[in-house]
Amino acid sequence: MSDAEKTAAQGLRRPGSQGRADRREARAKRAAEHAPYIQRKIGYFDILGEEGQCLIEDNADDILQEIGMEFRGDPEILDIFRNAGADVKGERVRFERGMCRSLIKRTAPKSFMQQARNPAKAVRLGDGSTVLCPVFGPPFIHNLDEGRRYASIKDTENLIKIHQMLPYLHHSGGVVCEPVDLPANKRHLDILYAHIRYSDRPFFGALIGAERAQDSVAMAKILFGDEYVENNCCLYAVSNTNAPLVLDSAMSGSLKVYARHGQAVAVTPWTLAGAMSPCTVAGTLAQVLAECLAGLALVQLIRPGAPCLMGSFASTLSMQSGAPTFGSPESAKMVLAAGQLARRLGVPFHTVGALTSSKLPDGQAEQEGAYGLLMSVLAGANFINHATGWLEGGLVAGYEKTIIDADLCGNVQSFAEGIDLSGNAQALDAIREVGPGAHYLGSAHTLRNFESAMYRPAASDNNSYEQWVAEGSYDSAQRANRIWKRLLRDYEAPPLDPAIDEALKEFIAKRKASMPDQNYY
Amino acid sequence: MSDAEKTAAQGLRRPGSQGRADRREARAKRAAEHAPYIQRKIGYFDILGEEGQCLIEDNADDILQEIGMEFRGDPEILDIFRNAGADVKGERVRFERGMCRSLIKRTAPKSFMQQARNPAKAVRLGDGSTVLCPVFGPPFIHNLDEGRRYASIKDTENLIKIHQMLPYLHHSGGVVCEPVDLPANKRHLDILYAHIRYSDRPFFGALIGAERAQDSVAMAKILFGDEYVENNCCLYAVSNTNAPLVLDSAMSGSLKVYARHGQAVAVTPWTLAGAMSPCTVAGTLAQVLAECLAGLALVQLIRPGAPCLMGSFASTLSMQSGAPTFGSPESAKMVLAAGQLARRLGVPFHTVGALTSSKLPDGQAEQEGAYGLLMSVLAGANFINHATGWLEGGLVAGYEKTIIDADLCGNVQSFAEGIDLSGNAQALDAIREVGPGAHYLGSAHTLRNFESAMYRPAASDNNSYEQWVAEGSYDSAQRANRIWKRLLRDYEAPPLDPAIDEALKEFIAKRKASMPDQNYY
Repeated sequence: MSDAEKTAAQGLRRPGSQGRADRREARAKRAAEHAPYIQRKIGYFDILGEEGQCLIEDNADDILQEIGMEFRGDPEILDIFRNAGADVKGERVRFERGMCRSLIKRTAPKSFMQQARNPAKAVRLGDGSTVLCPVFGPPFIHNLDEGRRYASIKDTENLIKIHQMLPYLHHSGGVVCEPVDLPANKRHLDILYAHIRYSDRPFFGALIGAERAQDSVAMAKILFGDEYVENNCCLYAVSNTNAPLVLDSAMSGSLKVYARHGQAVAVTPWTLAGAMSPCTVAGTLAQVLAECLAGLALVQLIRPGAPCLMGSFASTLSMQSGAPTFGSPESAKMVLAAGQLARRLGVPFHTVGALTSSKLPDGQAEQEGAYGLLMSVLAGANFINHATGWLEGGLVAGYEKTIIDADLCGNVQSFAEGIDLSGNAQALDAIREVGPGAHYLGSAHTLRNFESAMYRPAASDNNSYEQWVAEGSYDSAQRANRIWKRLLRDYEAPPLDPAIDEALKEFIAKRKASMPDQNYY
Repeated sequence: MSDAEKTAAQGLRRPGSQGRADRREARAKRAAEHAPYIQRKIGYFDILGEEGQCLIEDNADDILQEIGMEFRGDPEILDIFRNAGADVKGERVRFERGMCRSLIKRTAPKSFMQQARNPAKAVRLGDGSTVLCPVFGPPFIHNLDEGRRYASIKDTENLIKIHQMLPYLHHSGGVVCEPVDLPANKRHLDILYAHIRYSDRPFFGALIGAERAQDSVAMAKILFGDEYVENNCCLYAVSNTNAPLVLDSAMSGSLKVYARHGQAVAVTPWTLAGAMSPCTVAGTLAQVLAECLAGLALVQLIRPGAPCLMGSFASTLSMQSGAPTFGSPESAKMVLAAGQLARRLGVPFHTVGALTSSKLPDGQAEQEGAYGLLMSVLAGANFINHATGWLEGGLVAGYEKTIIDADLCGNVQSFAEGIDLSGNAQALDAIREVGPGAHYLGSAHTLRNFESAMYRPAASDNNSYEQWVAEGSYDSAQRANRIWKRLLRDYEAPPLDPAIDEALKEFIAKRKASMPDQNYY
């Protein structure tokens, strides 16, 4: 860039006389960028044609009819299915072709809201929405200062606070990391409290077991009120099938509680193709769809109209070492096809985001992570779990990875806006004004639009080499380290009614006192 | 993974009795993965609707009619356009609505082959092909051993050799880095020689100026034969317009030479939205299309039927610092829309790949790079320049970045295969065999398919944390460092007829002797 151009670029900082109205417009646009969820204006990337989709659906019906699915350790579920007309032998349940689909299509909502304690942060699931959510489940954390170590409740709180400060995340999540310093059978209470106290976004209920799901509903009722919770979705839960073709009582127990209370359940087979499903994309898809159909039919039998999502967490396996792999072309194909199958089923679609098997927030982490998140967006996912922070196959929540991933979250939010075709965006007057061989840096059109023209990532560096060296030659992880520390410093807890806070603490104390500490689930 | 599962995973290494035929099939599949170019079986991601595409086309016509384009320093071009009926005033050429489009549609081929000295490595441009090509143009290199320094001819040779060894690259490229140790006015000869000598893939002709383009054609004729070159596309060239709306004589000089000899020209406006084009996506698209229409019409007027591509290199600008930015949502929208516009025009589409402003092969580099490359693939690009190695806004060719990016090249090649819906891939028998609650690791279906089931990246690590530590705790750049050194060690030059080699050396010596060294272009 010449000196003249640099001066002109700097001129961008001083909008001219048309400034005030344009700045108003820019502010409005920035507010839209910080919307509570993504409302997509772009299409989907359909990887399967009509014939391919019908084939997978037929195969899923074959599986449900011939093989069926096992619901282990939960006789009530077997009764529910028997009464609905399914063929129940032992714990094996077989379904006539089309039975599950028809149960789901009859009553499952196409779209619903999950409420937040800040009503402005309620999120839509369905109708072209996309909700981005932090990593779920890692027992370890990683940051540049401490390396990799077991996570504690302090990390859970830190990560909730950092995410609350990140404008392009929409959901506070659940087990952003496992506070392994707390008893395994009680920590769900502390995690729920941390979400309620330190974030004002929607959050997860506890996933494993009926009792913890009951605790989650009880805490939601303290926060939102009993009647409100019974009539509104205030909790989000994933019910992972035990692929292939099993749902155990730990997952079905919480599924039943959430469904009965009208809380959202994303029935989500977790498959590593080659281990928990066939090593082929088409085979995995049929099995995933079969498991979703059975699980979602169960939700609708328990409470017709209960909010639910078809989920898919279809990853791959290294056929050399047996290790899970992420960001693979096979997983991309699976998420795109699963999104299509969910739209045909008429329920919102839940999937996963920026996954990687890398141990560090390095090139591999972001190549695999960006690829995966982008594919989930193109698949039309309505809820993307693990959009930030995931490292090492989900064993580690990365502080720096969170910040770098969050840049991509903002990017896809802007991308999903599609192309503005307004007269201002067409810019014909600007092209006429500037003409051949000149530049747009100081043009009236640029000055009018510069504040909102381009998305601005936070951890990326696009300075000159010389300036980058002068600033310390940091890589993106080192910049991200400074960013999450600043966010924690600047963090302010959103206000919470002290009476509610007190009631939550009381409930937690009572629950904790009612059971001995256990260090297993 | 349990011990039993590990044993089963290891069992994958010992295929059973069905092994031989299956291994044959797997080898055939791997050969397809090393195909000379990607033949896509997936669709495109269309970001503009019909109305939006028509609007951009209308605006491009407005621009060409009202404002026109300047062809500077080349009276012959003005004559060509005048004779074709354009309105020429000074160096400004204006076109009636639809004139350029109709000239292009009348004679430009929808698809063509670029030949390689190894006939098996010829590439198709058009008809759903995608050709991946290394970075072009950096005066610096970066690697972990030496950091950032000026590039030399040794680096040019190294990068050509490394790419020749990478199975998922299809084109040897051009100025993979600038050998700044050689005189600026002669180094094109050394670069061309290095491609011919060290690679057997297709390559670029020199881009700047008629004289160097003539040299390129002369060297191609030594390699392929005079008549063959006149009747086949043996060179690839980009003609960058000087956006906005100018083509200067350095670029038009080479454009004319290549077009006259029937060699491929990708007319490619390079725009940083906000500097060389409006700061909006829709405005940039109209200007890009207008420049492409004028440039491609020129190619077809010079030699009707000459192979050509519509190119777009539409990046963005930091509205804060004036620095170029890459991997932005705005550039994603532009490449997707430009791909649609090229398909409507009926010519192959050229664009750019894994770009970043990062100085290092870090998380930023791969987040921006993977995002950009993937968008270009979804846009249906037939030629993707800078698919590997690009760092620091194109100022630096990264050795490690090359290796990490190449993993993504293989990934998108596999992704573009789409979903296999064969009976084997549907895997219903495997699902029946395994049944609920078991695993697929040792199933007959897995054993039959494991060799070819999953794409295998080279620089990614998916080992356990413990194994990763035992192997040195390397990040992806450190692993990539070992990989490029191994590729250089293992490199063997593809055989070249000694008579041709001799003739090339003679030509280069003669040309070098005919002009004084110059250290500027």
